[in-house]
Amino acid sequence: MLQDKNQINNAVRNVMSDPIAAIATALAPAALGIVRTSGKGSLEIVSGIFSRPEALLNAPSHSLVHGWILECGSGEPVDEVVAAVYRAPSGFTGEDAVEIICHGGPSVVTAVYSSLLKAGFRPAEGGEFSLRAFAGGKTDLTRAEAINEIISAKTSRARKKASARLAGSVAAAFAEIRAKILEAAAAVSVEIEYPEDEETVKGSFNPSLVESALESLRLLSSTWSSEKLYQSGAEIVLAGATNAGKSKLFNILLKEDRAIVSDIHGTTRDWIEAEADFSGIPVRLFDTAGLRETEDKIEAEGIARTRELLQRADIVFYTVDSSAGFTGEDAGFFRDGGGNNIPVFIVWNKTDKENSLPPEKFREQFSSFGLDEKKSGVAGVFPVSAKTGAGLEALVKAAAETLLAKTEGAASGAALGSLRQKETALTVESYLQAALDNAENGFPLDAVVQDLDDALFAIGEITGETVSADVLDTVFSKFCVGK
Amino acid sequence: MLQDKNQINNAVRNVMSDPIAAIATALAPAALGIVRTSGKGSLEIVSGIFSRPEALLNAPSHSLVHGWILECGSGEPVDEVVAAVYRAPSGFTGEDAVEIICHGGPSVVTAVYSSLLKAGFRPAEGGEFSLRAFAGGKTDLTRAEAINEIISAKTSRARKKASARLAGSVAAAFAEIRAKILEAAAAVSVEIEYPEDEETVKGSFNPSLVESALESLRLLSSTWSSEKLYQSGAEIVLAGATNAGKSKLFNILLKEDRAIVSDIHGTTRDWIEAEADFSGIPVRLFDTAGLRETEDKIEAEGIARTRELLQRADIVFYTVDSSAGFTGEDAGFFRDGGGNNIPVFIVWNKTDKENSLPPEKFREQFSSFGLDEKKSGVAGVFPVSAKTGAGLEALVKAAAETLLAKTEGAASGAALGSLRQKETALTVESYLQAALDNAENGFPLDAVVQDLDDALFAIGEITGETVSADVLDTVFSKFCVGK
Repeated sequence: MLQDKNQINNAVRNVMSDPIAAIATALAPAALGIVRTSGKGSLEIVSGIFSRPEALLNAPSHSLVHGWILECGSGEPVDEVVAAVYRAPSGFTGEDAVEIICHGGPSVVTAVYSSLLKAGFRPAEGGEFSLRAFAGGKTDLTRAEAINEIISAKTSRARKKASARLAGSVAAAFAEIRAKILEAAAAVSVEIEYPEDEETVKGSFNPSLVESALESLRLLSSTWSSEKLYQSGAEIVLAGATNAGKSKLFNILLKEDRAIVSDIHGTTRDWIEAEADFSGIPVRLFDTAGLRETEDKIEAEGIARTRELLQRADIVFYTVDSSAGFTGEDAGFFRDGGGNNIPVFIVWNKTDKENSLPPEKFREQFSSFGLDEKKSGVAGVFPVSAKTGAGLEALVKAAAETLLAKTEGAASGAALGSLRQKETALTVESYLQAALDNAENGFPLDAVVQDLDDALFAIGEITGETVSADVLDTVFSKFCVGK
Repeated sequence: MLQDKNQINNAVRNVMSDPIAAIATALAPAALGIVRTSGKGSLEIVSGIFSRPEALLNAPSHSLVHGWILECGSGEPVDEVVAAVYRAPSGFTGEDAVEIICHGGPSVVTAVYSSLLKAGFRPAEGGEFSLRAFAGGKTDLTRAEAINEIISAKTSRARKKASARLAGSVAAAFAEIRAKILEAAAAVSVEIEYPEDEETVKGSFNPSLVESALESLRLLSSTWSSEKLYQSGAEIVLAGATNAGKSKLFNILLKEDRAIVSDIHGTTRDWIEAEADFSGIPVRLFDTAGLRETEDKIEAEGIARTRELLQRADIVFYTVDSSAGFTGEDAGFFRDGGGNNIPVFIVWNKTDKENSLPPEKFREQFSSFGLDEKKSGVAGVFPVSAKTGAGLEALVKAAAETLLAKTEGAASGAALGSLRQKETALTVESYLQAALDNAENGFPLDAVVQDLDDALFAIGEITGETVSADVLDTVFSKFCVGK
C-alpha cells in the first residue's frame, strides 16, 4: 500500500549518479568561493585538472588537499585551491564528491567552474545536490526544504525558524501524528483479520487517537500563514504628494543612502525598491513617484505605476508634510481609491519642523475634505521625522503588528515550512476527518482503514517516506543551482 | 644591512596570533558560505559552540568535521555545517585555523559569524589572514597581492594575468634581477675587503651585470600601465542628444536590461553606470542625461553631472541618431568643449532605420558647423545599430585598442601586479643607475656598493624579504576582510 522508500530512492539514484558541478557561493568579489561537484567519477575527473592528481585520488573521505586547478586542455594554472574530498557513502549527497574552495572573485570562480565542465562534469540543475542527498537517505523532505529556506531567509528571525526545521522540528511533529494514526490503523486492521463477530469489530475503532492526531495537525496547519510572512515577507508602498519626504523616509527605513533625495518636485521618477527588517518580517519597501497631477508623460507613468504597486501591497505609508498639513492634493489620492482597501498608515512627517502641525490636526483636515477614515482604510496617524528618526520605531512596530494580525497567529512549537507541507497537511486532515465520519456513520471498517492508510501515505509525502516524482519535482525545482 | 626576514616575521607573528574570524564569501543568497577563523586557540573556541566538540578537537590537520554550529550562550542550533580544520604550521595562515562551511544565505552566514565572535574571536581586519600567511612564510608579497587581484578581477583576461603572478611569475623575475645585482655587489665587496691597489679595484666593477639588471627592470616596469588597465579598467561616457539612443546602446553593450529605455526625451535623469568587458578590459559605462538645453532644474543638474563625468572619462561615445544626422544641438556639445581632449567616438546610431544617413555624411555635417574633427578629439565614426547590434563589435574593439594604445604596451613575459611594485621598481632603477653613474664618474667603490645594497633592499621590499611595517600596511590594508 505504502510505496517503499528504498525502491523510490534506488530508482532516483539510478537516474542520477552522473557527475555534476555548480558554483555554490554568491558571484561577487569575496575572499573565497566554492565550486561543488558530486557523482560517480568526481574525484577522477577533478584529478585530471588538478596539480597533484595522486594526492587527490589517494585522499580519504573528509580530507582537504591543497593544489592548483588547471585549465582543462592548456594546463595553465587557474587558481590555487583546497579540494574538500568526500567519498560515498559519506558527505552531503552520499556520493563521491569534491568541493573546490577557491579564491572568491566572480571571474576566478567562473574559470574554475568552466574548467570542471570541460573536464567532464555537467552543470547541475537547481536543487540537484539536495535531491541526491534525499535519494541517498541523507535527509528528509522537510529538512531539504529547510535548507532552501535558510539560504533565502531575509531576517534573523526567519533564519531561526528555518534552523529549527532543519534540526527536524517538523519531521518530529509529523512523526508523532503518524504514530497516533498508525496505532489507530493497526488496531482496526487486526480486527478485520479476525472478523469473528461483526459487532465487536465496530466497537474496537478508537476515534480518540484519530481525533488527537487531527487536533495536532490542525494546530500545525495554522502555523503556516505566519511562517509564510516571515519567509516571503510583505510589501509596503510609500505614497504621498511630492515633497512630503517619501525618499527621505525610504532611506532612513533602509538605514542607507539608496534613493536619490532631492528637494525638487518629482525627483523620484520611477519607483525604487529595497528590503528592510520590520521586527523580523522582511519588508520590501517601494518609494514611488510623487502623486502629483502632471502633464509630463513620464511622471504620469510613474503615477500609473504607483497605482499598480498598490494593487499588490500589504500596507501603504501615506506620507504627509506635517508643516503643510493634509492638502487637497492628498485628498485626491483618497478620492481616487486611496489604498484600495489595504491599511493606510498616515506618516505625519517632518515633525522636526517648527511649524509642524500636531497629528490631531490630520483628523480635522481629513474630514474637512468629506473623507471618512474608516472607509479610506486609515489605520492610524504616526508622527515621524524622517530627518531625526523620531517616531520611526513606533511606525515599524505598528506595521509589523498589522501584518501579523492578518495571519492565524504564531506557533510556539513546530511550524510548517512550506505551502507544500500545508497543502499536504490539509489532505491528511481530510482523510482523518473522513475516517472519523465513516466510523461514526457505521461504514464498514475497511473503508476506515483505507482512509487511515491514505492519511499515512500523505504524511509520508511530507517527509518523503512515500513520495512521487511529481512531489520531488515540486520540492527541488525551487532550489537554487548549487544546493 | 638587509633586514632579516625571520626577525620581521617573528615580530609580526608575535603581535598577531590572537584568534580572528571573518565572513569569507559574498553575502548574497547562495547554496554555501564560509566563515573563516585563524589564530591560537581557534579549534578550542569553535569547539565551544560546536555540536561535536570532541570530534573537532581530535581532528587532524586538513580534515572535515560535520556538525552544527550553536548559538553562543543559548546553545540553540544555528546551522548544519562542515568544519575544515587546519593545524599549525599547515594551512593558509600557518596557524591553527577552522573554516566553517555553512549554508549560504546572508542571514545564516551572519548568524554563524556572530556566534563565533561571541565565543571569543575578534573580527579580522582587511587582509589580516594574508598578512599572517606572509608572516608565517607561506607566501611572498607579490603572491599575496595577486590573490587580492584575482578576487577583484573583472574580466577573464585580468584574472589570467593575476593567476600567473600568484603562480610566482613576478617573484621569479625579481629573483633573476636580484641575482645579477648580488653577483655584481659580491665582486665589488670582495675588492673592498682587500684594497691592495686602488687602481685595480676600480677596474673590477663590472657594469654589464648591472646594466643587464637595469634593462630587465625597465622592461618589467613598462608592463604596469597595461596591467593597470586590465585591473582597474577604464571609463567610457555615453553622451549625445536626447533620443539618440544612448540608453539602448548602454543596454546592448551590457547585454542586459539595466537602464530604463524610453522614447521620451530626457528619460535618463541621472547617470546610470555598469560594467562591461571590452576585449578583456573592464569598462565602466556611464549613461548620462540627455545634453539638451533645458529649463528643468533636474535635467540641468544631469547635464552638469555629464560634464563632471567627462572630466575623468577615458573615451566618450558621442551618440548621434543617423536618421536625424548631426544637428545643431550636437554641434553645441563640441563647441562647449566636447570631450575635454579625450578621444570622442562618434556612434552613428540607428543604422537599421530606412532613412539612416551614410556615415560619410557626418564629416560634411560636422565641418558645416565650423567644427574641426582633430581639434574636437573625434577619433572615428562608427556606424552602429543599438537595436540589431550591427557594428557593435567593431566599436568595442576600436575602444579597447585606443585604451591599450595609451599604455606602454603589453608584456609577453612577467608583468607587474601593483602600483607598489611599479614604484619600488622605479626606486630600484634609480639606485642601479646611481651605481653605474658613480662607477663611471670614478666615485669610491663603497659608494657603488651602497647603491647596489640599496637596490637589493628595495627589491626585497617588493617580494617581502626585506620589509617595513609601512609596506606591509600598504599591501594588506587594501585587502578585503576575510582575505
